[in-house]
Amino acid sequence: PPDWTEMDTKAVNTIRVLAADAVQKVGNGHPGTAMSLAPLAYTLFQKVMRHNPSDLDWVARDRFVLSAGHSSLTLYLQLFLGGFGLEIKDIESLRTWGSLTPGHPEHHHTAGVEITTGPLGQGLSSAVGMSMASRREHGLFDPDTPLGKSPFDHYIYVIASDGDIEEGVTAEASSIAGRQQLGNLIVFYDDNAISIEDDTNIALSEDVAKRYEAYGWHVQRVEGGENVVGILDAIEEAKKVTDKPSLIAIRTIIGYPAPTKMNTGKAHGSALGDDEVAEVKKILDFDPEKFFQVDPKVLEHTRKLVQRGEEAEKKWQPEFDAWAKANPERKKLYDRLSKRDLPENWADKLPSYPVDAKGLATRKASGEVLTAIADELPELWGGSADLAESNNTTMEGANSFGPTEASTKQWEANPYGRTLHFGIREHAMGAILSGIALHGPTRPYGGTFLTFSDYMRGAVRLASVMQAPVIYVWTHDSIGLGEDGPTHQPIEQLAALRAIPGLSIVRPADANETAYAWKAILERQHDWFSGPVGIALTRQNVPTLEGTDPVGVARGGYVLAEEEGELKVIFIATGSEVQVALEARKQLQDKGIGARVVSMPSLDWFEQQDADYIEEVLPSSVAARVSIEAGIAQPWYRWLGSFGRPVSIEHYGASAAAAVLFEEFGFTADVAVQAAEQSM
Amino acid sequence: PPDWTEMDTKAVNTIRVLAADAVQKVGNGHPGTAMSLAPLAYTLFQKVMRHNPSDLDWVARDRFVLSAGHSSLTLYLQLFLGGFGLEIKDIESLRTWGSLTPGHPEHHHTAGVEITTGPLGQGLSSAVGMSMASRREHGLFDPDTPLGKSPFDHYIYVIASDGDIEEGVTAEASSIAGRQQLGNLIVFYDDNAISIEDDTNIALSEDVAKRYEAYGWHVQRVEGGENVVGILDAIEEAKKVTDKPSLIAIRTIIGYPAPTKMNTGKAHGSALGDDEVAEVKKILDFDPEKFFQVDPKVLEHTRKLVQRGEEAEKKWQPEFDAWAKANPERKKLYDRLSKRDLPENWADKLPSYPVDAKGLATRKASGEVLTAIADELPELWGGSADLAESNNTTMEGANSFGPTEASTKQWEANPYGRTLHFGIREHAMGAILSGIALHGPTRPYGGTFLTFSDYMRGAVRLASVMQAPVIYVWTHDSIGLGEDGPTHQPIEQLAALRAIPGLSIVRPADANETAYAWKAILERQHDWFSGPVGIALTRQNVPTLEGTDPVGVARGGYVLAEEEGELKVIFIATGSEVQVALEARKQLQDKGIGARVVSMPSLDWFEQQDADYIEEVLPSSVAARVSIEAGIAQPWYRWLGSFGRPVSIEHYGASAAAAVLFEEFGFTADVAVQAAEQSM
Repeated sequence: PPDWTEMDTKAVNTIRVLAADAVQKVGNGHPGTAMSLAPLAYTLFQKVMRHNPSDLDWVARDRFVLSAGHSSLTLYLQLFLGGFGLEIKDIESLRTWGSLTPGHPEHHHTAGVEITTGPLGQGLSSAVGMSMASRREHGLFDPDTPLGKSPFDHYIYVIASDGDIEEGVTAEASSIAGRQQLGNLIVFYDDNAISIEDDTNIALSEDVAKRYEAYGWHVQRVEGGENVVGILDAIEEAKKVTDKPSLIAIRTIIGYPAPTKMNTGKAHGSALGDDEVAEVKKILDFDPEKFFQVDPKVLEHTRKLVQRGEEAEKKWQPEFDAWAKANPERKKLYDRLSKRDLPENWADKLPSYPVDAKGLATRKASGEVLTAIADELPELWGGSADLAESNNTTMEGANSFGPTEASTKQWEANPYGRTLHFGIREHAMGAILSGIALHGPTRPYGGTFLTFSDYMRGAVRLASVMQAPVIYVWTHDSIGLGEDGPTHQPIEQLAALRAIPGLSIVRPADANETAYAWKAILERQHDWFSGPVGIALTRQNVPTLEGTDPVGVARGGYVLAEEEGELKVIFIATGSEVQVALEARKQLQDKGIGARVVSMPSLDWFEQQDADYIEEVLPSSVAARVSIEAGIAQPWYRWLGSFGRPVSIEHYGASAAAAVLFEEFGFTADVAVQAAEQSM
Repeated sequence: PPDWTEMDTKAVNTIRVLAADAVQKVGNGHPGTAMSLAPLAYTLFQKVMRHNPSDLDWVARDRFVLSAGHSSLTLYLQLFLGGFGLEIKDIESLRTWGSLTPGHPEHHHTAGVEITTGPLGQGLSSAVGMSMASRREHGLFDPDTPLGKSPFDHYIYVIASDGDIEEGVTAEASSIAGRQQLGNLIVFYDDNAISIEDDTNIALSEDVAKRYEAYGWHVQRVEGGENVVGILDAIEEAKKVTDKPSLIAIRTIIGYPAPTKMNTGKAHGSALGDDEVAEVKKILDFDPEKFFQVDPKVLEHTRKLVQRGEEAEKKWQPEFDAWAKANPERKKLYDRLSKRDLPENWADKLPSYPVDAKGLATRKASGEVLTAIADELPELWGGSADLAESNNTTMEGANSFGPTEASTKQWEANPYGRTLHFGIREHAMGAILSGIALHGPTRPYGGTFLTFSDYMRGAVRLASVMQAPVIYVWTHDSIGLGEDGPTHQPIEQLAALRAIPGLSIVRPADANETAYAWKAILERQHDWFSGPVGIALTRQNVPTLEGTDPVGVARGGYVLAEEEGELKVIFIATGSEVQVALEARKQLQDKGIGARVVSMPSLDWFEQQDADYIEEVLPSSVAARVSIEAGIAQPWYRWLGSFGRPVSIEHYGASAAAAVLFEEFGFTADVAVQAAEQSM
């Protein structure tokens, strides 16, 4: 391009040499793509993206998602050259204890990393969420300005690899992106035809471009990783197509210009070796005897980005101020959302329910909560993976998020709508929710059956790793699902989800605990790294209980029914089994045996309480304990000790009415009393 | 079609009426697709497929996979009409306790159900595995006969729904199917444009046909669910294309001919209501007052399939006998594999390793095992999701399974090859492995990093539900993975996988335990419903230990190092942490404290042992216990009781060398000794 200087070329070559050096020094890593993608990444960061290294939270910044997270150097070297905070010592300490440059980019760990990536497919899929978030942001704050003309508008750039393209999660997300006509999403597919098992031909013969066209994307092809003009032209073309996401397949040679290892699987995931690194340096006119060479002039040149970034934001500020002046109410909302504050007294809107033996399903209560707080919390939005009516995820009266032609008899869609429709794509839903949460400033939720949390697990785990404040609405949370049978009845999911560090699971016992749970979740997610929460809800009706307590729910567990007389045994239960615990307690109390019921909607939250509170709820002197939960016992043994007994289900369910299953599988007061007697 | 009679039409209408009645009776279920797919399913079962209701294990039978498992009636009603064992009382007891007709079709529960389906996407993806299995079967037994000409050859038919098409797992599997040129796979896509959230337009705008063309499939379109001629013609065309899988998109009207509910989401997942059911009956010329009406003449007509099936098999038998005569050695192999026997003395080939402080990684030992037993066990085959070299899943000298043009510099492919290449598609790998195992008679394995078991979880769970004998090779099983960091280091995966009922996890301590584990796995998987096993293996070297024991490994846990003097504390450890336990024991013994080390490669297997053995290994009198495992403690509390202490990691890892991480995160003998002292 006309404004490309010798310094730019030298900077690109510096990237290649540093990538080779950094991996060689630590002895392992992924040099190949960092080398071949150097021109692309450099062009994006230095020539294309609107961002400001001095203000990483600039609301209107373009986002960059390195979906090919294994090529973390691709990002680190831009953050170094561009002046985002990394220095050469950070590059030298790649992949070592305590460094700012871990093996894969980690959000909240390294400034300028917008999202943690590495598990393939997640980055591109979350980028779809970021793009959706940006449109919703526009709709919340500046709906009267056309898309693309608002100070809030910006682009989402992605670099994706063969792995990202092969993973099913991106297939799901890319189909959604097509349906959503995400014009500000620009994905570079690094089509280097090499993965770890070498030439991708062994496992990939599809026509990727055609597939993306089938999704409704705008697809272009750039020949050659060195082809900066081609890259720039393609970006210009991509920006012109405002109603389609863009895929730009760029044919690169992995490891270029390493003389013997380029274009091989070896260049993907291993150090090149001293000799090959020396050869690379010779080819690029660097001293083969020196390491981590950065010409100060190169750095001076690339760090001009700091100044350009500041100027860009300065230039933008008046547009934003004009918007603020014209939209004082929206500006208030903007300020509140930017701080992730909740409005005053919002919780007054939460429904409350009278004690009632018939009760209602907690999923229904959850739906009523969402509708009740919809007006107070415009930042809250979400939907379901094609189970809206079952998951009760739709706020009454909310329209759907999508282009108007996505509307159907049942749903009215508009580009700034609120109800999300993920289709039958749980994994993409998970990744998209993360992208929305990371993008800010809204709060997303998404629902499916609890069993199908399995399908989302890759995304749920990554949300937990990066502590993204996402809410999962998982309904049909036990054998209480009934007739659909063992394939649909969660048995191990509560345990398996509680196992994920940083993820909280909440399983309210009744309608009121459901409202309290939503309150606690929204209050706990008060910052941008407060972590994901899953709420597990019943399909079936459960009685609305006496004595449920918002503070107790927020602490994860509390004494719902005190013992009468001396405390002999403690029942600990969650969700639909709390009623069983209460019945069992009654039976024992009728016999004069002091029994307590602890409602424990969240083991994760309870574990975070101070020792005194835990001792108060579960006195260590009382070894007789019974857990009651329609799932496996694995998470309960910690609290049961040597003498406690779980009432649990350790095998798959069956297809029959819920009531039959609870009876047949032993979730009855009689069984619980028996367990208590064994425990005492 | 010319041979279509009025009886056939009446049979199709009977299906519709029975579907409406059955769902109405139980009050919930999925009537819509069973009604609209009646002509297709009837045509397949009665006119197209080669199968024999009297011999459900006929090796050459065509397989039918109802990927749209929610429409279980579609299958049940064919099994009823065709004489596969279901009777009208079974249809009447749909979705009730103990019935043969659960909400979703369950393999091993209802004769004629080839695979458990319901979780969307799994059926179609496993069908890809079945098709691959059929080609490998051909290659093992009849390689000199062209594909399609052998008595072993047959077709795999699938009915898939919008959900199947939207799920990412099928995107992965369909791409593999294209690469593999699976000519005997014929998939009907029930393109009814309705899912639970009603019109799919709200979430689906892609061009599905074009997408499948991009995968390299042969794609056809049939207009109208009643278009039997179109269906038959399309199948003929599909069969002509022998080097591509076939997608036949068939535009149906869900719920047809229900007057008010057809073509709506309501017809998908709810009973139609009494009035609507009555209307359906009127339209189809049935008595609206009667229920579960089956004209005996219709049944007589459809049950002629029994005779036709017997004739088909009789006609086939001489072909098979001729093959057997011409291939006596292959016939022996066939007989052995049909019984799932292992060859005599096969285990003699297993490698054994001298005690060695340096040792080797268990993943390496696992690779050596596979190579060592390759010749003995031709039924064993597998590969990796693009991590072959890391997972050590390639048997030395084995060629790759794929068309010859899939060959690359590194891999030589042939259609009957042995090494599987799944690409970066873990979820499809899981489903494909299940399909191979269900199809028989081979034994499949597949590898990825343990962390990415998360991506496969939908498939792993379903394999466990149906007890498919699959082997998962999960390497890089802890923070020992090192520099790739927290996104790649499993923390909760061992716990989360042990949580799955029916799945066994084995984590051998060293090279010899790895060989013993493979022996135990292959011996345990002695029948077709022996269930899946995952083997967790280290990236890093671990010492080869003294005293490891094949019988102990097969029992899941055993005393590896006896205490000297009185037993005061028991260390229980798995995998790479057994060495830590041994060091800790030594420290204690040096102080004169009797300490035992229990190596516990499989908690799942250990739990299955008799109480005496468990008491012998873990005497209940010894409350001082320490578990050591580089994962969360959740699965260990059961064995630790009130006084035991876990040495575990309850948070995500970090990017650094493995040795640094084990030290920093407290997997050292000192920490274990400290825990032991607290426990005592």
